[in-house]
Amino acid sequence: MVITPYLLQHENIARLEGGTLLIGDRRAYPFGREFVRCSTIEEVALALRQMVTQGGGPLEVALLSMCFVRDLIREGRAAGALSTFSEAAKALSAARPTNTTMRRALTGLLAPYRSLDEAMERVQADVEAILVEYDELYHRMGRLGSTLISDGDSVLTTCFAEHTLLYSLAYAQEAGKHITLYVNETRPYLQGSRLTAPSAHQMGIDVIIIADGAGANLMREGKVDSYMTACDVLCMDGTVVNKVGTRANAIAAHYHSLPYYAFAISPDPTKADGRDLVMEERDPREMKECLNRPTTIAEVGAYYPAFDIIEANLVDRVVTPKGILESRQVKEHFV
Amino acid sequence: MVITPYLLQHENIARLEGGTLLIGDRRAYPFGREFVRCSTIEEVALALRQMVTQGGGPLEVALLSMCFVRDLIREGRAAGALSTFSEAAKALSAARPTNTTMRRALTGLLAPYRSLDEAMERVQADVEAILVEYDELYHRMGRLGSTLISDGDSVLTTCFAEHTLLYSLAYAQEAGKHITLYVNETRPYLQGSRLTAPSAHQMGIDVIIIADGAGANLMREGKVDSYMTACDVLCMDGTVVNKVGTRANAIAAHYHSLPYYAFAISPDPTKADGRDLVMEERDPREMKECLNRPTTIAEVGAYYPAFDIIEANLVDRVVTPKGILESRQVKEHFV
Repeated sequence: MVITPYLLQHENIARLEGGTLLIGDRRAYPFGREFVRCSTIEEVALALRQMVTQGGGPLEVALLSMCFVRDLIREGRAAGALSTFSEAAKALSAARPTNTTMRRALTGLLAPYRSLDEAMERVQADVEAILVEYDELYHRMGRLGSTLISDGDSVLTTCFAEHTLLYSLAYAQEAGKHITLYVNETRPYLQGSRLTAPSAHQMGIDVIIIADGAGANLMREGKVDSYMTACDVLCMDGTVVNKVGTRANAIAAHYHSLPYYAFAISPDPTKADGRDLVMEERDPREMKECLNRPTTIAEVGAYYPAFDIIEANLVDRVVTPKGILESRQVKEHFV
Repeated sequence: MVITPYLLQHENIARLEGGTLLIGDRRAYPFGREFVRCSTIEEVALALRQMVTQGGGPLEVALLSMCFVRDLIREGRAAGALSTFSEAAKALSAARPTNTTMRRALTGLLAPYRSLDEAMERVQADVEAILVEYDELYHRMGRLGSTLISDGDSVLTTCFAEHTLLYSLAYAQEAGKHITLYVNETRPYLQGSRLTAPSAHQMGIDVIIIADGAGANLMREGKVDSYMTACDVLCMDGTVVNKVGTRANAIAAHYHSLPYYAFAISPDPTKADGRDLVMEERDPREMKECLNRPTTIAEVGAYYPAFDIIEANLVDRVVTPKGILESRQVKEHFV
């Protein structure tokens, strides 16, 4: 039985309650199980920009926001027009420019609606259907991912790769394989320490936190068998975009002849390769703090690009709902 | 005029005052300019183990501790025997097993003493002479290092490489070169953010803090021209031991055809290669804290080897007082 950990249960990612949208606050976890309460779409967009949730969280928040828009229109708190939906989608997409999955899902959801009435009537069922479909995809990818893990393996990961990686490990364990997960703590937001490690622990997976720069030396020591991460974006040529630190580990894995596997629900068809990417550069002050406390003096500079770009030759396989693909196969499977 | 920053001024590393040895507390810097006050050699060893000072700090503390032993004997607070010196040296060396420079310096200092009287009489002048010699070596290596930096260069570093790197940058600036220093924040103790960045800033060097995993992507972006670090140990075959994160950056530099330069006063003649190293493994709890606050739940595991091993083929040049050497030349210059 594969357990879904607290953070990935739908009601803890986001839910509608009493005319507000509640977003599970991943910044507070695991020290608190708090929610940010949003009364407007602007507040939802701000919450996404402030990293209240991340990874697959913004997608689910954005989808649920469309039901929230319906409620706002119904209660006379937003203009009763079809464009209210598309404007909300635009505002949410702009909050995390690198997360094109969110933008694409919203576009796909809203595209068929020809009138306000149609949107008001269908949006709830359509969003629910999409979430069920994602759950199925996550489990399918988890089963596929588990085939890449052998008994006795140690897997290294960065950040919070959510369902796909965690289900892969859980299905591997269910198949009787003994596994260990090494996770980079993933500064500045410590998603590895705060989100991945406790979630894996809840699922009964042995998890060991290491420094963000420690992976290459663990590989030298023979302690790592594969590197696995999510992708924030997958380009059509197999280029992967993921959290800062992924590229360094991918290069080290390549140097040590260890495989790097990336999980992606689908590539972004508008991104032929890395040159088409808009990279999110975040406030440098975030690099000068840890858990809201300063780590240095105010006068020094900092640079915080949120993501790394990993070219296809560094990625051994991409795990997708359509199978475990080589980078060059991505294009033919998703046209 | 090359400035020596606060942290590297002798009196702020360690000093004798009122029958105690004061050690500048690098854990508190830059938020406080505090000192740990030691009344016994055991307290000095404990302070070293607790990382009150690090990098070149333990060497200077250990040397000054020999003057402290003389004071303790003189005041009847320690046994009046020559072996009191060698036992103190042994206790201090054991506190940081990977730091063989400290052990070798203490052995070299004490070896010529044939009697307690000789030690009592000579130790102060001998320690002072060694410290002056180190200062000269640091400036010589800084001048050498500066020749590896071109106008407009950005240099990446990890942890707190102290005099040699900082003087290299300062001498490069003195020669009219415009330079930028990127520094990894260097978890878990944040030496990059707390020590290197403020020290470089005091010296008038432009410094930018980045995440520990961010170097490889900066190299892809063309933002880094070279990678430079200190070594905690240099083996006779050119193998470098340095802070966690160094290996990942060295591999990424290699992948991007960028040079990695390591600074070393001398190799450890007892270490032919990496197989001879005793690696310090630190308390895993340190990987689950930041600035003394927990970063995760207590139940999850952590692993914290303090150092990386970087094989000679990843090191382009070693900057030593005897010149800028290729790894294979180390042995012939230091026999």
